[in-house]
Amino acid sequence: MGEFVICGHVLNPASARHVTMARQVLHVGADGVIVASHAAGTAAATAVLDDAARRGVPVHELAPAQLLMPGFADLHVHAPQWPQMGRALDLPLREWLEQRTFPLEARFADPAFAAPVYEQMVTTLLANGTTTAVFFATIHEESSLTLARICLRHGLRAHVGLVAMDDPALCPADYRNPSIAQALAASSRFIHAVRALPGNENALVRPMVTPRFIPACTDGLLHGLGALAAAEGCMIQTHCSESDWEHDYVRQRMGVNDTVALDRFGLLRRGTVLAHSCFMTAEDMALVHARGAAIAHCPLSNAYFAGAVLPLRQAWQAGVHVGLGTDISGGYSPSVAVNAAMAVTAARMLDTGNDPALPAATRGRTDARLTFAEGLWLATRGGTDALGITAGQLAPGMAFDAIMVDRAAPGSNIMLPPAGDPDHTAEDIAQQILCNMGRPNIRTVWVAGRRVHGAETP
Amino acid sequence: MGEFVICGHVLNPASARHVTMARQVLHVGADGVIVASHAAGTAAATAVLDDAARRGVPVHELAPAQLLMPGFADLHVHAPQWPQMGRALDLPLREWLEQRTFPLEARFADPAFAAPVYEQMVTTLLANGTTTAVFFATIHEESSLTLARICLRHGLRAHVGLVAMDDPALCPADYRNPSIAQALAASSRFIHAVRALPGNENALVRPMVTPRFIPACTDGLLHGLGALAAAEGCMIQTHCSESDWEHDYVRQRMGVNDTVALDRFGLLRRGTVLAHSCFMTAEDMALVHARGAAIAHCPLSNAYFAGAVLPLRQAWQAGVHVGLGTDISGGYSPSVAVNAAMAVTAARMLDTGNDPALPAATRGRTDARLTFAEGLWLATRGGTDALGITAGQLAPGMAFDAIMVDRAAPGSNIMLPPAGDPDHTAEDIAQQILCNMGRPNIRTVWVAGRRVHGAETP
Ligand SMILES: [Zn+2]
Ligand SMILES: [Zn+2]
Repeated sequence: MGEFVICGHVLNPASARHVTMARQVLHVGADGVIVASHAAGTAAATAVLDDAARRGVPVHELAPAQLLMPGFADLHVHAPQWPQMGRALDLPLREWLEQRTFPLEARFADPAFAAPVYEQMVTTLLANGTTTAVFFATIHEESSLTLARICLRHGLRAHVGLVAMDDPALCPADYRNPSIAQALAASSRFIHAVRALPGNENALVRPMVTPRFIPACTDGLLHGLGALAAAEGCMIQTHCSESDWEHDYVRQRMGVNDTVALDRFGLLRRGTVLAHSCFMTAEDMALVHARGAAIAHCPLSNAYFAGAVLPLRQAWQAGVHVGLGTDISGGYSPSVAVNAAMAVTAARMLDTGNDPALPAATRGRTDARLTFAEGLWLATRGGTDALGITAGQLAPGMAFDAIMVDRAAPGSNIMLPPAGDPDHTAEDIAQQILCNMGRPNIRTVWVAGRRVHGAETP
Repeated sequence: MGEFVICGHVLNPASARHVTMARQVLHVGADGVIVASHAAGTAAATAVLDDAARRGVPVHELAPAQLLMPGFADLHVHAPQWPQMGRALDLPLREWLEQRTFPLEARFADPAFAAPVYEQMVTTLLANGTTTAVFFATIHEESSLTLARICLRHGLRAHVGLVAMDDPALCPADYRNPSIAQALAASSRFIHAVRALPGNENALVRPMVTPRFIPACTDGLLHGLGALAAAEGCMIQTHCSESDWEHDYVRQRMGVNDTVALDRFGLLRRGTVLAHSCFMTAEDMALVHARGAAIAHCPLSNAYFAGAVLPLRQAWQAGVHVGLGTDISGGYSPSVAVNAAMAVTAARMLDTGNDPALPAATRGRTDARLTFAEGLWLATRGGTDALGITAGQLAPGMAFDAIMVDRAAPGSNIMLPPAGDPDHTAEDIAQQILCNMGRPNIRTVWVAGRRVHGAETP
């Protein structure tokens, strides 16, 4: 992979509130990091183009209806639930786990079953524009390592967690860690194995300490995993305050909310990703902020399994990092864009309420709505920032994790302005991308400057 | 167009609660009506194939991952808002109408502006699998007739309404009917013109009497339109009890809810399509049922403009016909499948509630959830049944309005079972189609036996 230059429209989430679009000349170095980004037509842009011509660096010119944008970050994916995506949303969380999900995940004991599923998942996520993913795998070391290898081979920036779950009260006999010691040893081996994978010198794929959630883990395991994460300097992921059942279960067992319990076990730190978190209180959010941990907001999944919408703005106001998760297969879509649009829609429904039998004044909850610019931020830089990754904006110093979107692709549902009208604003294009982009629009995807999906541009 | 036979999997909404999938041999007559549908391998199926071979009738064989299903019915589309699709969802309903939507619709006074927009809209709706659409056009006769012609040319089964709106209290000076007499004369001319269009002998495209909504119309206009519809035997569409603002506005002006007011004007009849209807009471629903009218449920739009979710099951329990509407551009997606999935999601959120600050017991509303089988019904037969159209199921006697879905198409987000596993159930496939189907999966679309989008099968 060598350096290259791209000239074309760049849609960039400059901040949570502001998205920009401008024609830029963007220079990507051989290390996959953006060296420079200059407004087209400026002296600096011309200098980049001249220098590229002199040194024989490839220059790609985008068509007017094409644009570059940062790739998507998906902060919560259950890799072994991939075969169940878009199905089986009819049961409450606990029954869904016991009747459908644990039996499916148990099949990943067989790496020969896992490999083609994970291969298809990784390539499909890339094709949907996901450039960073955070995976729950299963308790099985070999097939989870297979997942890490597949991510590496296809160039997906990934965090992979070997799941730890040992409590016989919830976990079935054929799908749980047989002992605390076994679970800790496996997690430790997995961390080292992922870090040592050939080709992973730049840590494109990272391990995560992954207690499934408090109801599936004994206190001893949670304690041990907290110590392991600290000793290894390893990131953490788990579920947090997802549904009434889960939230109440933890309160009954621990006497406190998930966040406080996780904190006591050393599991709440910068680099911890907490899926869902719908039922966090203001105190929970303050604690998460103090520890520097992040929330993976999964709006589609929450409609089916949480029975509530995360008050996301409240989390932001408490200073908490928030990104988006598809929560496959609790969520039905592999597209972060679809989930970002759903985050905006769900926030509206939280804001206005949804039961017409209630009077307007008491139906909703004030100050809950989100803009589509905020949705784009959540889908990109909100997620990478939560993970401490230098990507998610197309700006110098950031890794070139990007999507080339073709608004005029055959099969597109993104509509260009009527002939003669000016082009849409950056906010409007961001909204169209979240609401109407389909796979035909996603022409090329790069991670760290490497083309990981689609045609060579343009 | 001649008769043909297709052999392959058929996904069929047999009832609101039950979807079936089986390998069938389906015979479509030269008139576009399904002559026969027999289980593959039966004597009857073999007889159809033998007869086709003898008479030289084309036989198409679908691949195992392909299937036929009924086309979608979209009961509420604002055709002139097409350029605004996927944008401009940031304002309350009234401001949105005044600041964004009326100025856009006013541009359709120019048929040269309208024609390419409508052309692109009709072809895009067909490409998304919509085979029946119900359109609000604008107040402009010529461009609205252009829309009807474009539907006819491309073979989209359509209902097109010339919009009537004359109340200066709400409608801008440059976008309203100048008088009741002008509006009624225009509507009358439009009805006759659509019915007389060359090529429309089978009434594939039908006119609709279309008072925009009560707040935009004077009493005299509403009265006149009711009389016109009765005199012409013409179907009716309007908006009904959409948002707090609209609902309260009508109650203040009329002293009754929308349904009662519409009924007094003769506008509530079998063949009337009422968009939204979120704030209907049980009495409203009983009246709508008594009159045989239908609701166009627009779940995405309602999240942004209604501030409430239609209690759809309650409407069904009252015996009301319900179909789905995209409500472009109040809704952001041209896909009825996306709206059907959102109907299921929104019904879940109504059922469980969405504010985590409320206790679980009081957060939601019981018995509001929908299954995905019900979502498929709404998207297909629910809509055609509401309109009195003999289509929406792939069964003998129904028009062949159909989609060929390729679950294995390149660019698909619909996942097939892991190798060696049995195929998914009909319910699961229906859910996957609503949740994960994209344009790459929609290979061929037919209306009344005519291929209106995509490749000749397979
Ligand atoms: Zn999860
Ligand atoms: Zn409407």
